[in-house]
Amino acid sequence: MAYAQENKTIETTIIDMEKAALERWNHGDPSGFLEISASDVVYFDPFVEKRLTGIAELTALYNSIKGKVHSDSFQLIDPQVSATDKMAVLTFNYVSHSGSEVNKWNCTEVYRLEPDGKWKIVQTHWSITQPALK
Amino acid sequence: MAYAQENKTIETTIIDMEKAALERWNHGDPSGFLEISASDVVYFDPFVEKRLTGIAELTALYNSIKGKVHSDSFQLIDPQVSATDKMAVLTFNYVSHSGSEVNKWNCTEVYRLEPDGKWKIVQTHWSITQPALK
Repeated sequence: MAYAQENKTIETTIIDMEKAALERWNHGDPSGFLEISASDVVYFDPFVEKRLTGIAELTALYNSIKGKVHSDSFQLIDPQVSATDKMAVLTFNYVSHSGSEVNKWNCTEVYRLEPDGKWKIVQTHWSITQPALK
Repeated sequence: MAYAQENKTIETTIIDMEKAALERWNHGDPSGFLEISASDVVYFDPFVEKRLTGIAELTALYNSIKGKVHSDSFQLIDPQVSATDKMAVLTFNYVSHSGSEVNKWNCTEVYRLEPDGKWKIVQTHWSITQPALK
């Protein structure tokens, strides 16, 4: 019971952090994600040639797209958190709407409990759901 | 020192497990991955419509491609493991060669230390590196 309670709290904490960062993201502000990413964060998206390694590389990317991402609405489909006491993996399908445009993504975030008691992202992986390949 | 030692061992263990499963994968045998995946594993690749949730869904997918994947060689580019005592996230860029064909992928695996002392995959995310989109 105590264990289930603890995991419930981690799950809620992580999903709330992710939604809050996505809310800012969809208003052109990537710094919500930077604020909750660890110094040793690693990152994949479909546009990077190679994994980004470390907060400096991620900061450079996010600074380059500041003000450029806007969505009318977004949903996390079936978010799931698998957690141990110090690490938690959040996965979900993601849908965002901009006018008539609909974008579908796969997302994996790994959060780690830091010594100061705060959860930080140590791994982000975004990919397009069933991309239309040439 | 003890901590660094412990993490070094986790890192080596995880990367060796991944390479061994990939060796079988590239000879048409996906069961190497099934054997080291947890019952509650979740999974993304570019071809699934939605996250696969649980070993039964992953088993169905892997059974459908048994004998179909063959590569002459593969490399894990700059594999990195970020670990706590019970969970470890492995990320790498992946290149496989089949004749003159070269495929480039992003990969995130999350391993969890199970009560029996064995590491099992709880999350797999494969995506194409810079896919050529229509």
